[in-house]
Amino acid sequence: MITNKLEALFNPKGIAILGASSDTGKLGYAVARNLIEGGYPGQVHLVNPKGGALFNRPIYKSVLDVPDPVDLAVVIVPAQAAPQAMRDIGTRGIPHAILTSGGFRETGDKGAVLEEEVLSICRDFHIRLIGPNCIGLLDTHLPLDTTFLPPPPPEPGNIAFLSHSGAFCAAIIDWSRQQGFGFSRLVSLGNQADLSETDLLPVIANDPHTRSIALYLESIPHGERFLETARLITQKTPLVVLKVGRTSSGQKAAASHTGALAGTEAAVDAAFKKAGIQRAITSEELFDWARAFACLPLPSGRNVAILTNAGGPGVIAADALSDQKLCLASLDLQTISALRDHLPPAASSQNPIDMLASASPEDYATCLKLLLADQQVQAVLVIIPPSPVFPTVDIAKILVPLIKQTQKPVIPILMGSTLIQQTFQYFNQHEIPTYSFPERAASALARLADRADFLRAREDSSPFEPHFEEQKLSTILSSIQGKTFDPAFGDRLLEAIGIQTAPVRLAATPQEAEQISIELGFPLVAKIASPDILHKSDVGGVLLNLDSSSAVHAAYNKLVTRAREKQPAARINGITLQKQIHAGQEVILGFVRDAHFGPLVMFGSGGIDVEGLRDISFALAPLTRQEAKDLLQQTWAGRKLAGYRNMPPADETAVIDALVNLSWLATKYPQINECEINPLKVLGKGAIAVDVRIKV
Amino acid sequence: MITNKLEALFNPKGIAILGASSDTGKLGYAVARNLIEGGYPGQVHLVNPKGGALFNRPIYKSVLDVPDPVDLAVVIVPAQAAPQAMRDIGTRGIPHAILTSGGFRETGDKGAVLEEEVLSICRDFHIRLIGPNCIGLLDTHLPLDTTFLPPPPPEPGNIAFLSHSGAFCAAIIDWSRQQGFGFSRLVSLGNQADLSETDLLPVIANDPHTRSIALYLESIPHGERFLETARLITQKTPLVVLKVGRTSSGQKAAASHTGALAGTEAAVDAAFKKAGIQRAITSEELFDWARAFACLPLPSGRNVAILTNAGGPGVIAADALSDQKLCLASLDLQTISALRDHLPPAASSQNPIDMLASASPEDYATCLKLLLADQQVQAVLVIIPPSPVFPTVDIAKILVPLIKQTQKPVIPILMGSTLIQQTFQYFNQHEIPTYSFPERAASALARLADRADFLRAREDSSPFEPHFEEQKLSTILSSIQGKTFDPAFGDRLLEAIGIQTAPVRLAATPQEAEQISIELGFPLVAKIASPDILHKSDVGGVLLNLDSSSAVHAAYNKLVTRAREKQPAARINGITLQKQIHAGQEVILGFVRDAHFGPLVMFGSGGIDVEGLRDISFALAPLTRQEAKDLLQQTWAGRKLAGYRNMPPADETAVIDALVNLSWLATKYPQINECEINPLKVLGKGAIAVDVRIKV
Repeated sequence: MITNKLEALFNPKGIAILGASSDTGKLGYAVARNLIEGGYPGQVHLVNPKGGALFNRPIYKSVLDVPDPVDLAVVIVPAQAAPQAMRDIGTRGIPHAILTSGGFRETGDKGAVLEEEVLSICRDFHIRLIGPNCIGLLDTHLPLDTTFLPPPPPEPGNIAFLSHSGAFCAAIIDWSRQQGFGFSRLVSLGNQADLSETDLLPVIANDPHTRSIALYLESIPHGERFLETARLITQKTPLVVLKVGRTSSGQKAAASHTGALAGTEAAVDAAFKKAGIQRAITSEELFDWARAFACLPLPSGRNVAILTNAGGPGVIAADALSDQKLCLASLDLQTISALRDHLPPAASSQNPIDMLASASPEDYATCLKLLLADQQVQAVLVIIPPSPVFPTVDIAKILVPLIKQTQKPVIPILMGSTLIQQTFQYFNQHEIPTYSFPERAASALARLADRADFLRAREDSSPFEPHFEEQKLSTILSSIQGKTFDPAFGDRLLEAIGIQTAPVRLAATPQEAEQISIELGFPLVAKIASPDILHKSDVGGVLLNLDSSSAVHAAYNKLVTRAREKQPAARINGITLQKQIHAGQEVILGFVRDAHFGPLVMFGSGGIDVEGLRDISFALAPLTRQEAKDLLQQTWAGRKLAGYRNMPPADETAVIDALVNLSWLATKYPQINECEINPLKVLGKGAIAVDVRIKV
Repeated sequence: MITNKLEALFNPKGIAILGASSDTGKLGYAVARNLIEGGYPGQVHLVNPKGGALFNRPIYKSVLDVPDPVDLAVVIVPAQAAPQAMRDIGTRGIPHAILTSGGFRETGDKGAVLEEEVLSICRDFHIRLIGPNCIGLLDTHLPLDTTFLPPPPPEPGNIAFLSHSGAFCAAIIDWSRQQGFGFSRLVSLGNQADLSETDLLPVIANDPHTRSIALYLESIPHGERFLETARLITQKTPLVVLKVGRTSSGQKAAASHTGALAGTEAAVDAAFKKAGIQRAITSEELFDWARAFACLPLPSGRNVAILTNAGGPGVIAADALSDQKLCLASLDLQTISALRDHLPPAASSQNPIDMLASASPEDYATCLKLLLADQQVQAVLVIIPPSPVFPTVDIAKILVPLIKQTQKPVIPILMGSTLIQQTFQYFNQHEIPTYSFPERAASALARLADRADFLRAREDSSPFEPHFEEQKLSTILSSIQGKTFDPAFGDRLLEAIGIQTAPVRLAATPQEAEQISIELGFPLVAKIASPDILHKSDVGGVLLNLDSSSAVHAAYNKLVTRAREKQPAARINGITLQKQIHAGQEVILGFVRDAHFGPLVMFGSGGIDVEGLRDISFALAPLTRQEAKDLLQQTWAGRKLAGYRNMPPADETAVIDALVNLSWLATKYPQINECEINPLKVLGKGAIAVDVRIKV
């Protein structure tokens, strides 16, 4: 198993430092210092062609001279010397290396060539490599610190952190000290010439000290493999990811920084959703959430009680709950009455429970107990501002056992700094995360609720593969000539996967158009038929409400004339005729293929406003029925299918069927590149695809 | 001037403390301690019926015995004793009081009666009162500290803070110590029996030490007066407001806490926009923004350079710029070339400028100088992670003079805690705000840019009052009978303010309908005419595409039958007929009246999707032309008026005219309660109101 092999990166028996230096200003000194003075229990061997001694041990002139045990090399030599260093490591039979040095792909074409050379040597000698251009890794529990960062290392903790950026790692390690959290394992991945976040995730997830994993990613080139790995891990361990390059400016910056190609952001969001990854948007969220995941139980729902000794922060917290789609729990009458009995008359025994400024630590405990005993309450936010009357640490002391006992998440909000410092430390020592403001606490709590929803949904539903007439589909697909297709092709394809269409007929002459119109009945829609005109309405290529065969004849001539005027080079096959459907709600559905994550299904408001209104939502194929339902709920187009004002309810099931089937078409037939049904007319019973565009 | 009189609250010559206590566990002791030991330079007189001595001075048995000078009383007596205390203060001729004690309106009906009594005594004796139920006020520069909070008081600074919540004040004072900012003046307003935030804002704004003002508000009952005051102040001093009760949960919590009625959130947003107030959504934003406003110049635009020594944080910063609608500045070729000459080859001389980890303090200075000299750069974010090579404080030392010299805002981002502590302090001492992550820095910078936009817009445009035919309008308005009106009323009103309508005619019989249809021409729309049916389409009360007089006759009978079935109690006047307009883009516009802020103009996507899509925007009347243009830009309905795909451009000017005129109708005729034009059909030239609903 690859997992077991890479575990040695975090738990090596012996380490050789190539480039160890007795010059205290050099990184090669700092790495030796951190490994030797940091308490790493294995062997540390120093290597430098100059020889000498450091920390009371010899410096070997070559790694070939290093005695056993040694199964990891840390390399901090000039880039030009790296290939020879890797060859020596290979010759000495060391299976793992961290190439800390910079000067490779990140510096341009010459560096990229050098990186390729290093990688090729690693492949030859079966060395698995972290880096180059990284700060190495840490395991705080062993402990192991291969970085050159100034001590102290981060506090031992239960959050693992993998980062594409070394500087961000260094900053976060320093920041974490003040925030009161620590790390289990930490890896700076650098250029990922060999090992990427996807390779290391399983090792990290297997670490018994790791209870949540935070990732900082600049790109996800092997999207499908990452997704698969993440899906397995999130069944047990929560994953929080800050994926940067979300915006056009960010993508520009990331491209110049890493040279990596950006995937579409909609695909990243959809992939994270499918894998149960929580996507942080800010640096603070990444760790606010990871801390909650590492230490708190998941709530059974989104109903939250707020316990406070001051009204104002209670209102801030209530707003924050709403912002995060959490609810103020409606307390049981019994709870309200018990709270009323205990609290002074001016207090509020409704949620938020405002005990007033006079509240003692015992009041906090009594009220928290009552709230936790209430079945309506699924989580509690406890607000603790600096008190002029009681030492707030006494509140912590009395609450900690209650918080540790309960299966419901309870989050203390400590508003202040110096006056609540002792309280902050007390909660920290007991591994209870605290937040300085209600907004950050509510944001973390909401992610716990999201994860609970995700785990429930995963239990409830497994993807169901619909039965397609494979033979028929293959015949249709093989009939395609060139890039686009005859107008009936899309309809035949949709019908083969069970999506109803309005019959479309091609007429090559005005006379044929008249004949077909009589067969189809009125009213009719006529559209220009051309493989070169995709957006027909842009060239005036659509005519509605044709109610006689003579109108159809006239329409033929009008459409062809217009098309010839506007797009003289377009091949024109005639016009298509289709029964006009007045009834029903209009929606758009379809799929595209993302370069990194594969087929991406889309659903939303159709028509020409689709780009402007952005009432549209995405999910990765294949879809479960629940995922299809979620797509409906995420858009106004989907929500109003249930009926709205004088608009009658439309057939949601037909839309869900269509989405699921379309998602399987995308999954099983990679030769279909893109498909868009716009509009699908959703009737009281059934749904009809009126127009479909397919790219093969 | 009221302003000058209330100034004495912050700069009294002498203070009497009613309820001063030698019991160190009591708040009456803490207030005396803070005033006497905190260095307040005026006289402090202690009062308690028990007499005695404290801090080497006598405790007077009555405030009547207190010698001159005394122009402020701080009262911390039991609520029941407050009326007599206020009478004594009045008798002694003290013009200002702070009633710290709780036990009033916040505790229920009995407390409210007591509060009324206190207020009435204040009115009788011309005492201006802060409180009750508050923690008092501070001026850190005098210094003056009337609170009972444990020392030390907040650091002197240039941010003023007014708060409806005492607990939030106390928490923020403590929090500010760690964040490295101080306050000029700070007021806890409590129940605001007499003085509110609106009364105190002018005094605070006149304080020479105050450079920005932060407010925490739970309600704004005197909305129009607040707005007027704020508009005057924001010309000179930036205002940042955290107004809670934004959400349904928050409103519920605020109502149970303060009993105040919530205004509509759209009105609050519109009012803040009109007054140039920056609305914070989180507690951290409130002070992140206030700090930037207090210390930094405003940028001349939204083009920002990012200077970093690490790629990752540069990408985070670029994303954050986009999120905040700021741009990555495109550097002058000259700047790029100078950067390239100075930096190592692997560095990035494009924005974000990545100097690489080897960057020295001198490199930071050289690059910052080049960026500041570039006309394309209007602001700079400087990212400073902990460096393993250079002490980061050296970067601060070399950058501070540059940042102080330039007219462009430069924000250092200090990522870390202990390793950058000294650097943090150095910037702080020089009044340069720093942020721990790019996201928070970008958010603050964007508010500076917003304020610059606001000040420019205020210079550019003044509201222009259109000329209405007042006589005609008055005649129409006086003709209204009852709550609703005959169908032509709205049209006449719109035409009187220059908005074109499609003539609507009322037919009381099928025969009359036929006759009118011939006069109007075809196609026609028929609608049920009833003062009791507002949403006509909900009862099937609209028929389209009537193309002959016989169709109109049949429509009459059908509409009346339907209406009688669905709403038997409705009075039915017949049907209305109107020429059907096929062309044009559909928008909705109108106004409602907010209880606190007055008339609120709305614009957006019309039709029945208006509630679901929420493509709608609001602004307070009256509108300038620029504000009307902004309403268009804030919605898709407005943006696509410029033309979109095969949709031809529509007459934006006609919509702007209609919005401005409607806003003045709302401003000048308060008897019109509500008005909604849905839809306004916007043609290539002109716009026609097809349907209008008015409530008088």
